[in-house]
Amino acid sequence: MHKYKNISDPVIRRLPRYYRFLGELLDKGVTRVSSRQLSDKMGFTASQIRQDLNCFGGFGQQGYGYSVESLYQEIGHILGLDHSYKAILIGAGNLGKAVATHMSFEKRGFRLIGIFDNDPAKIGTSIRDITVTDLDDLEKFCESNTADAAIFCVPKTATPRIAERLHKLGIKNYWNFSHYDLSIDYDDIIVENVHLNDSLMILCYRISDANDNPDEELQ
Amino acid sequence: MHKYKNISDPVIRRLPRYYRFLGELLDKGVTRVSSRQLSDKMGFTASQIRQDLNCFGGFGQQGYGYSVESLYQEIGHILGLDHSYKAILIGAGNLGKAVATHMSFEKRGFRLIGIFDNDPAKIGTSIRDITVTDLDDLEKFCESNTADAAIFCVPKTATPRIAERLHKLGIKNYWNFSHYDLSIDYDDIIVENVHLNDSLMILCYRISDANDNPDEELQ
Repeated sequence: MHKYKNISDPVIRRLPRYYRFLGELLDKGVTRVSSRQLSDKMGFTASQIRQDLNCFGGFGQQGYGYSVESLYQEIGHILGLDHSYKAILIGAGNLGKAVATHMSFEKRGFRLIGIFDNDPAKIGTSIRDITVTDLDDLEKFCESNTADAAIFCVPKTATPRIAERLHKLGIKNYWNFSHYDLSIDYDDIIVENVHLNDSLMILCYRISDANDNPDEELQ
Repeated sequence: MHKYKNISDPVIRRLPRYYRFLGELLDKGVTRVSSRQLSDKMGFTASQIRQDLNCFGGFGQQGYGYSVESLYQEIGHILGLDHSYKAILIGAGNLGKAVATHMSFEKRGFRLIGIFDNDPAKIGTSIRDITVTDLDDLEKFCESNTADAAIFCVPKTATPRIAERLHKLGIKNYWNFSHYDLSIDYDDIIVENVHLNDSLMILCYRISDANDNPDEELQ
């Protein structure tokens, strides 16, 4: 397996965007793309794009651009999407249901193997062909199913106790939609937070800023 | 109103995190905080924090730290959270329902005034005391209700046509959960995207990276 080391976090965070965009080009039957074309569509400078892709050894050929298919495959490989990490979802409310039904886990390196809730009305129902299991049976489930990651779609107050149980079970990779900061309690975990409130506040800032400075060009 | 100009995007993107963290301190009754304490909890360096807060004129006093309450209020003000922008939600599926019920719009500068869907099974039902309206009646609704922003919780394929209608109605601020890139079609809009797939891919990368380099310390 290729290993790319010492890649900065900002570069890593841009990779999904390249991947997404290249996937769209593939769908349209585009076979080659220049850094300038990527730049026009993605809003990064062409030199930024060349620099980013050079972190991984560079896939382009001067004057010929990049092969869309190779670049797409390679970035997917760097992201580790050819894995099939087993994930369990905690919380089968609206958010949990939306995440379970909305996401293409298989295309993003994961496989959803279990859904848990403590609400009797939800236990036993099915979401995406997975039966919602009683949260009390988490340990029993994990005896026979090794989960690699857990998805938190529970309220903030419920998160620390569930994290403690997962951590004891050796499940230390979290996709966290709750507003609880898990990294405060553990230093041996991997956690990717989805902060919807932060995103909404950024929108608020940008609307306010544009209204207060109407003459400035929008970005 | 204070105006802060030429603030870089990375600083802006950190503000919700400060705001969130200061809110937690307030809830705990903490009145003063030093940049070092903020640094320990937030994972930025103390000098980074001082630099960020200096962008807004600096609220701290050497040796005394920051007043949690003032800093919280001021950052909220900078973010524009004292506004009450009227938002409509397009799409009342699981994701739309989760967004409508899960978010504290009022605390983030918004007020949800309408929810739309084209599914007869959803039209007429209520979410958070708001009746789901037929998407066909969007224009009629907007005649008597001026919306400032729209939230897209619809599939990618449905997004461009709905965006066209909203844009014609003068609604040009979008919180976009769909995977369609709205900025390609319009250059006079404000759009804040929520890319859940990107976040899941970043998690995949970080798990793969840790598994391939097990000896390295986790971040």
